[in-house]
Amino acid sequence: MKKIMFIATGGTIASEPTNSGLMPELSADTLLAGIEVPDVEIRAVQPFSLDSTNLAPEHWVQLAVMIRDNWSEYDGFVIAHGTDTMAYGAAALYCLIQNPDKPIILTGSQLPMNAPGTDAVRNLTNAFRCAEQGRAGVWVCFCGRVIAGNAARKVHTTDFDAFRGFTAEDEQPAEEFCRNEERQEGGTVFYNRLDSNAAVLKLTPGISAEMVHDYGTHVNALIIEGFGMGGIPDYGSGELFHTLETLTACGVRVIMTTQVFSGGCDLTVYEVGQSALKAGLIPAVGMTTEYAVMRAMWALAYSFSTEDFRQLFSSNH
Amino acid sequence: MKKIMFIATGGTIASEPTNSGLMPELSADTLLAGIEVPDVEIRAVQPFSLDSTNLAPEHWVQLAVMIRDNWSEYDGFVIAHGTDTMAYGAAALYCLIQNPDKPIILTGSQLPMNAPGTDAVRNLTNAFRCAEQGRAGVWVCFCGRVIAGNAARKVHTTDFDAFRGFTAEDEQPAEEFCRNEERQEGGTVFYNRLDSNAAVLKLTPGISAEMVHDYGTHVNALIIEGFGMGGIPDYGSGELFHTLETLTACGVRVIMTTQVFSGGCDLTVYEVGQSALKAGLIPAVGMTTEYAVMRAMWALAYSFSTEDFRQLFSSNH
Repeated sequence: MKKIMFIATGGTIASEPTNSGLMPELSADTLLAGIEVPDVEIRAVQPFSLDSTNLAPEHWVQLAVMIRDNWSEYDGFVIAHGTDTMAYGAAALYCLIQNPDKPIILTGSQLPMNAPGTDAVRNLTNAFRCAEQGRAGVWVCFCGRVIAGNAARKVHTTDFDAFRGFTAEDEQPAEEFCRNEERQEGGTVFYNRLDSNAAVLKLTPGISAEMVHDYGTHVNALIIEGFGMGGIPDYGSGELFHTLETLTACGVRVIMTTQVFSGGCDLTVYEVGQSALKAGLIPAVGMTTEYAVMRAMWALAYSFSTEDFRQLFSSNH
Repeated sequence: MKKIMFIATGGTIASEPTNSGLMPELSADTLLAGIEVPDVEIRAVQPFSLDSTNLAPEHWVQLAVMIRDNWSEYDGFVIAHGTDTMAYGAAALYCLIQNPDKPIILTGSQLPMNAPGTDAVRNLTNAFRCAEQGRAGVWVCFCGRVIAGNAARKVHTTDFDAFRGFTAEDEQPAEEFCRNEERQEGGTVFYNRLDSNAAVLKLTPGISAEMVHDYGTHVNALIIEGFGMGGIPDYGSGELFHTLETLTACGVRVIMTTQVFSGGCDLTVYEVGQSALKAGLIPAVGMTTEYAVMRAMWALAYSFSTEDFRQLFSSNH
């Protein structure tokens, strides 16, 4: 019989009504009692119980270390996680546990386990089925979809069908999810550090170069969500271009992506994008913002120079 | 015969290939020469010719003033606009020209007018048809959809079908677009100021209270894109909560919305959201981020106190 480790971390799935609104109160064992567990042996642990808005990178490092320490004893891992930062959490675990040869499945729900008509039962049951099937990788399992951990996004604040892959290729129906026979070479590589000094700057019209500069000086990596395919506004003076050149020269890793939901960034098409490349910005090609943020936090922790960072950030993701 | 004013402002629709990538080069008259104009009288003007990444709030004020000054002479207005900031531009004009009794139609394209297989001909032709039909309001006309100016979003960086309404109710097929007989009371109200000191802070896990504070002190309005339904991370200490209370006490208008694509924010459900309300944050209920930004810029320009701002920002949008 397969052994699955169940890690409960709080979130809506574990929430109960309180006078201050929903708060995570249910234990891992209570969650398990709510579902028909498949024919697997489960050990439940609960490192913390938080609304996932309150999760920080160190929490995901804690999960990665816990999984690493138990890797050899289990066939798979299921994590019950709040939905609000689950896309960030999946991206973090994707960076911290690379080339895994076992499944790590994140799930959660839009309604608490004890609420009438909850989606928690379906999602948690599906997550255990996926873990039991054994397909290696970090995945988000939600509302019948299984989504690659580096491509998941929360797309709806209330609907049950709340997560999507960055592209259609990044997800598949849970019932089709099965063992992937094509394994990557080499074994699982575990990391245990993230540099949380990375932040997103979403451009808005008229943003001042001074604001961008001051924000950029707070961080080691700045992920800029530009307009359209990505590019630096000029505003006639080229001031913002020079600000970003200065930040880059000071060692801030400046990454360019887009605030547009689909299609991704491409800095080669427009003059404003080619300016961004000239200023030394690193394009986050094919990445969600959530993944770009966590990938930057990981690459910061394991690189010295901007070039090292660029290579870690961009390669083989 | 109806008279339509055509305002060309640059953008991809007017772009030509250069050694530095696509740049807006085509004149308003060249754009008109590319389409079969419906049976209307058109006057073309070109106040500027810019990649819309380079547009700032003052450009939309310039357009609003130009439209105001020509209001009585025309039956409708068509604006050719770059797509990158068209959602912001439409939102800006929606705030600057309120309760209009004539149509103001923004359009653009994903490929230049002179590119093979361009979408420019269809979009520009449709925009003139919509203007000729006379339904009052500010609208984005793109790829056969007509979307309310306060609810449009760019959703794809490359597909022709690049814009959507915030909800399905905010858009309709161009062929069904027709005169709305239900007019609002009162005449068109023009405004000519935006305070561009508003910016977006997209929360990412682990963001420090210090960063939020320093960013917030640069602006008069801070639009926070939180996780899920919106809420303030606690991180154990409540530091961020106190930072936002301090910013609010210092007169910064702090607005809470969500980084999730659909469903919008609701601060009443979770404890982290109720904290945000307690800190005095203003929820951007039912608004896109693009609209919340431009609505904040408009409300800043026409309010003195935080309460005035809250009322202008939230009422009758």
